[in-house]
Amino acid sequence: MTRIITINREFGSGGRELGKRLADALGIPCYDHEIIEMIAKENGFDERYVANMSEKSIEAAYPLTIGHRFAMPPMPVIEQPIRVAVAQREILEKIAKKGDCVIVGRCADVILKDYHPLDIFVYADLDSKVARCQSRAPEGENLTRKELERRIHQVERNRRQFREMYSETKWGEKEAYDLCINTSGREIKTLVPALVEFVNCWFREN
Amino acid sequence: MTRIITINREFGSGGRELGKRLADALGIPCYDHEIIEMIAKENGFDERYVANMSEKSIEAAYPLTIGHRFAMPPMPVIEQPIRVAVAQREILEKIAKKGDCVIVGRCADVILKDYHPLDIFVYADLDSKVARCQSRAPEGENLTRKELERRIHQVERNRRQFREMYSETKWGEKEAYDLCINTSGREIKTLVPALVEFVNCWFREN
Repeated sequence: MTRIITINREFGSGGRELGKRLADALGIPCYDHEIIEMIAKENGFDERYVANMSEKSIEAAYPLTIGHRFAMPPMPVIEQPIRVAVAQREILEKIAKKGDCVIVGRCADVILKDYHPLDIFVYADLDSKVARCQSRAPEGENLTRKELERRIHQVERNRRQFREMYSETKWGEKEAYDLCINTSGREIKTLVPALVEFVNCWFREN
Repeated sequence: MTRIITINREFGSGGRELGKRLADALGIPCYDHEIIEMIAKENGFDERYVANMSEKSIEAAYPLTIGHRFAMPPMPVIEQPIRVAVAQREILEKIAKKGDCVIVGRCADVILKDYHPLDIFVYADLDSKVARCQSRAPEGENLTRKELERRIHQVERNRRQFREMYSETKWGEKEAYDLCINTSGREIKTLVPALVEFVNCWFREN
């Protein structure tokens, strides 16, 4: 049985780091930004447009399609998100068929449902998310606490909306996942050995 | 550092079984119905009244105080829940001071917050909860699906209300817990080795 682990996460909760570390510990690939690159390259889309579809509101994503590395092919505006969604499904199916892996974001839990993935949701309290965002900020970026909070809320609202394209289950509601883990005030690497064991148990018994 | 693990759970999710098995695997005591017995015995309350405070609405619990093993001491009706709540807090503090343990229900996650417990919430989809209730039903009890669903909703509503006495955080909302685990369609015992590892990681690093 292929072991596919999907990670959905709140912004600043450390879910991406957790996915990478978990994949390393299991010795399997982790797909994160790679998926966006694959969708963009194979379909001639702008990478930033694809990335923004899940993180920013769809309207806000449009200006980014002008004048960047991959030009959008001429098509009615309404078709673009659909084309990206179709491409995303195809790429995720390809990845799943290759074998065991961790997939971060991109609604992989919903799209790959028939592969019976282990679906993990990573969350944290607002203080922890702000602190993590601050510690990871690129040099020269000095957002205030208020600005960071606004960014966190915006990204999460758009992840929620993005999921609505694929599923009736709600982004972030525990019923949609197998395991939800609260990283408030914790170092991500300390959680990895426990999760490795969890993954092993889960797939051994399923 | 004392390792206290609290288990809160949806009715029929297997949380109680998970608590017992986890405690056995860790070689530490599990407190579940024992707490109710202790509260009742040490304070002269009716055991069923104490049990029902968290499972049934407070009004529905009253008739049970008449004519049972432990008579309620004469006191104004309004004081009874408060007396039980105080007794519960004292018993939980006593248990926590004894050392490592698993505690099922009774708002132990909130009451023992200062002991930094690992707080686990166990949940499942309605089909799984109904199936578990049916397989555990006492001989002769033949509730219909509809009746079982009603019982599940009622018990959960009252657990939610009971928690409101102690905390602003909401019963069953993932933010109130460290780890939430979905037992839908799974045998509880298959999850225990993973949780043992999780507990070990959690307290090693904290």
